[in-house]
Amino acid sequence: MGTTQLESVPEPKYWHLKTVLSEALDQDFAVGEVLPNERELAARFGVARATLRQALEQLELEGRLQRRRGVGTTVAPPRVGVDVGTARHSWPGEAGDGWQPVDATEAPAPTAVARILGLTASDQVHVVRRTRVTHGQPVAAELLYVPGTSVPGLSGIDAPAGPARARAVLRELQRAELLGQDRAVELGSARADDAKELDRLPGAPVLLVTTRYFGPEGTAAVSVATYRADTCRLTFGASGDVEIHEDAPARAS
Amino acid sequence: MGTTQLESVPEPKYWHLKTVLSEALDQDFAVGEVLPNERELAARFGVARATLRQALEQLELEGRLQRRRGVGTTVAPPRVGVDVGTARHSWPGEAGDGWQPVDATEAPAPTAVARILGLTASDQVHVVRRTRVTHGQPVAAELLYVPGTSVPGLSGIDAPAGPARARAVLRELQRAELLGQDRAVELGSARADDAKELDRLPGAPVLLVTTRYFGPEGTAAVSVATYRADTCRLTFGASGDVEIHEDAPARAS
Repeated sequence: MGTTQLESVPEPKYWHLKTVLSEALDQDFAVGEVLPNERELAARFGVARATLRQALEQLELEGRLQRRRGVGTTVAPPRVGVDVGTARHSWPGEAGDGWQPVDATEAPAPTAVARILGLTASDQVHVVRRTRVTHGQPVAAELLYVPGTSVPGLSGIDAPAGPARARAVLRELQRAELLGQDRAVELGSARADDAKELDRLPGAPVLLVTTRYFGPEGTAAVSVATYRADTCRLTFGASGDVEIHEDAPARAS
Repeated sequence: MGTTQLESVPEPKYWHLKTVLSEALDQDFAVGEVLPNERELAARFGVARATLRQALEQLELEGRLQRRRGVGTTVAPPRVGVDVGTARHSWPGEAGDGWQPVDATEAPAPTAVARILGLTASDQVHVVRRTRVTHGQPVAAELLYVPGTSVPGLSGIDAPAGPARARAVLRELQRAELLGQDRAVELGSARADDAKELDRLPGAPVLLVTTRYFGPEGTAAVSVATYRADTCRLTFGASGDVEIHEDAPARAS
């Protein structure tokens, strides 16, 4: 890993350190390997702890490092491409869509979601919680908001709670007419409950994907999915008449 | 803005502080307003500076606050929806696509890009730099990598450099056959040159959008666009037969 002294470099120290560390990760470390502790690393590279920490944060943002509770800082595997934009339009809950129903409750939707659905802040909606697991790792947690009017055939009695209730809501949703959908992706920070499910620390950077599902009466359901930003690359399938099967590399810089 | 003391709250202090601050931003501050300095805020809420800083970082990730050089921390306007996934497939550089050509050079592509293009690390490609401006604000910086074989008609003499050269490369690209494209979105940190163009600090979280353009011979060009994660929400147009014109709210939590 070398013992390069960085004291004499004119550019921001943490920036140069990041580049040096990045090369060291490529050459001297294996995926999953635990890095030496901060004190040791700082001494090795001749930098202050604060500088080292800045460089480590950068590398974490770029998906090169992972910080895990009780493990420390490890070398991250390449990000996994997770397909988000499906060309065919289908309701959530279709067989084989990769999501596991966890629970369903009735509660008011968050203000922004209520506004999209044309509801007031006190209107109750079905809130379906699902998780998405890829290669045995949780990659996303979703809250799906479904107004009662979108699932008029849903009965309250046979499956009052848990995954069975979630499946009942999703099953009813399949019967409704779906005209289209759109998506938005933005940066967010993990809420405590999502963080726990995704094995992240609360406040970790996440990618929020908001999907609006449109029926004949307007927006019929809204999904807010929280994807791990450290391990995931969101892919939006090919448009046009080509089929792409290989996996695009994660880093282009 | 209140003088709530947070010392007695059992959950992580910065987390609760974030919620309190978020409400204060809604109620007591206008968009663009500069927040009091950290010392003053920490005193007002009865928390340590480190706790305050954690909460401010969270709010910045969520797009509620902006830190700007020479200005301080200001209340951010709602994120702007920037259309990224276009349904029709077209080459970059089509009239009205919202991007400004800045420059074009010839250089080897970064390793990951070279791999997508089926080139070696030493092969030269055309590197077109463009910027995207929305409502007078720079929202994205792009590097478009075009192998010479994708623009066989390009001549080296009439526009050797600058925006004219960039336009010449883009114009030649329009003549090539385009079969399709796909995209991936991931979290990254701003490189120094992009940061400058986007009026951000180097290392700020950004959304990296990698687009592959497919021609008859395979991948004909690769674009790596760096979007500001603080001010942008990337939107992927409606699929299906509905036209959506209204702007989706930025926050759903």
